[in-house]
Amino acid sequence: MFKQLGLIGCGLMGGSFALALKRSGLVETVVGYSQTQETTQKALQLGVVDRVVNTPSEAVRGADLVLIAVPVAAIEPTLQAIGPHLSDHCLVMDVGSTKQDVVMGARRALNGQIGCFVPAHPIAGKEHAGVEHASADLYAGCQVVLTPTQDTPMANTERAQTLWEALGCRVRCMSPEAHDTAYAAVSHLPHLLAFAMMKAIQDQRGGERLLSLAGPGFRDFTRIAASEPSVWRDILISNRQAVLAQLDLYQQALHAFETALITEDAPALRELIATASAARADWRLGQGPRSD
Amino acid sequence: MFKQLGLIGCGLMGGSFALALKRSGLVETVVGYSQTQETTQKALQLGVVDRVVNTPSEAVRGADLVLIAVPVAAIEPTLQAIGPHLSDHCLVMDVGSTKQDVVMGARRALNGQIGCFVPAHPIAGKEHAGVEHASADLYAGCQVVLTPTQDTPMANTERAQTLWEALGCRVRCMSPEAHDTAYAAVSHLPHLLAFAMMKAIQDQRGGERLLSLAGPGFRDFTRIAASEPSVWRDILISNRQAVLAQLDLYQQALHAFETALITEDAPALRELIATASAARADWRLGQGPRSD
Repeated sequence: MFKQLGLIGCGLMGGSFALALKRSGLVETVVGYSQTQETTQKALQLGVVDRVVNTPSEAVRGADLVLIAVPVAAIEPTLQAIGPHLSDHCLVMDVGSTKQDVVMGARRALNGQIGCFVPAHPIAGKEHAGVEHASADLYAGCQVVLTPTQDTPMANTERAQTLWEALGCRVRCMSPEAHDTAYAAVSHLPHLLAFAMMKAIQDQRGGERLLSLAGPGFRDFTRIAASEPSVWRDILISNRQAVLAQLDLYQQALHAFETALITEDAPALRELIATASAARADWRLGQGPRSD
Repeated sequence: MFKQLGLIGCGLMGGSFALALKRSGLVETVVGYSQTQETTQKALQLGVVDRVVNTPSEAVRGADLVLIAVPVAAIEPTLQAIGPHLSDHCLVMDVGSTKQDVVMGARRALNGQIGCFVPAHPIAGKEHAGVEHASADLYAGCQVVLTPTQDTPMANTERAQTLWEALGCRVRCMSPEAHDTAYAAVSHLPHLLAFAMMKAIQDQRGGERLLSLAGPGFRDFTRIAASEPSVWRDILISNRQAVLAQLDLYQQALHAFETALITEDAPALRELIATASAARADWRLGQGPRSD
């Protein structure tokens, strides 16, 4: 149970966290800050926050829990701004999709205070950003990866884990490096590929007409292409080495399909598809590896 | 209103067509044939068909409507087998995802009878194949592309159009060539890319663990990778020139993203993402082009 959540960034992710906490009775008051007045006012009207303030440091004053829900590139400056104003025993988390850069930034920004920070990445999202889409259910049933630093006391990691679990999440701890490598493969690259799909269609003559012919398969394949540009620029730039390495592996896999098509090797093509199809049919969201 | 539907292929697509027709009171009797006895028996038990037969030609005897719902490579042999047994004025359709090859095959198989055949492609599907997943709702609200041949009397195209519209579909007519070019872009290539995504992950060390970390974005991006291998081998091989041309355009688009990442050109990357994201946010399933 927390007395006061300082919410920095009242968008979809931050707003949903506040709503979930309130619904579960895990927080008494939410104090919100967002870059634009429009967002903070909306958050207030929607009951996402109880009080709004004009600076990040005001948001954390008196808070025993702080969530930084801003694009990854803005996390370090935010930590820098709030560091001197954090209460003792305050638990600070982010929701960024990359973790090595966040941890490095946190080290620079927080110095000796780094122990209060438990980097978090909830694997959740929606087609539409903005506090108006925030929902107390966004995190229910989702996976949250925590990447505690070497200086994070175990007690703080446990507080973070308990909190996310109380919201219905499955929590997994890993190193920032392992996190970034894994999510380059299963999240960052798929986003890049989906963005490129939209561009490939837009760049051709009659692209608009092609889009009007597309069906439900296209809808699902490209859903993540609607993601927020600044957020994803930051993620891809920040994790670019791992993303480029995954892109290289992807090109090799794609090349195998291309070769089978060019040579009209129907048995090879069927085998390639069958292996992929079986793996996907076998997969379930939120299922741990079979060896777990 | 039809007296008898001869259904060849009682899987997801064919079974759903029969169920939708029955529910709308558009057919009196459905006679079904499938390659395996297991499927026809299931179709009978589920009330998808009223009577089962052992050959395609028995299925069309006395039918005034025939639906061929088999993988595209099997359509020509099926037409060959049923041609001599078709009643006068029978309307014959398929549900294949490629159309040039189907039309060419139909010409060879049906000769002078080609006029009865209205090639159709309903843009619908599901993660799971098989008659047990058939649903009277599968086609409701979906788009159906008809590619009548030069020898198709307008009256038959209109009969087909009226029928699909009665099932709640939006019908669009185009040439087989235009169809195959368009669906290479918005359906066949996305399938290929999704298959390759699964392969890229499976081929790396710890692929199973990576899969266990994937979230809802990955789920939607790869949904179509679970598609039926033989069906998609046929589609990709049959339409391979258009698919390879689209793959080439896709590689160019992807290269633009890759270059921005390698050079760490954040503004260029943001611009690329923003254009793709706006196009996808703007898009709605089943929405015609704005100029319509």
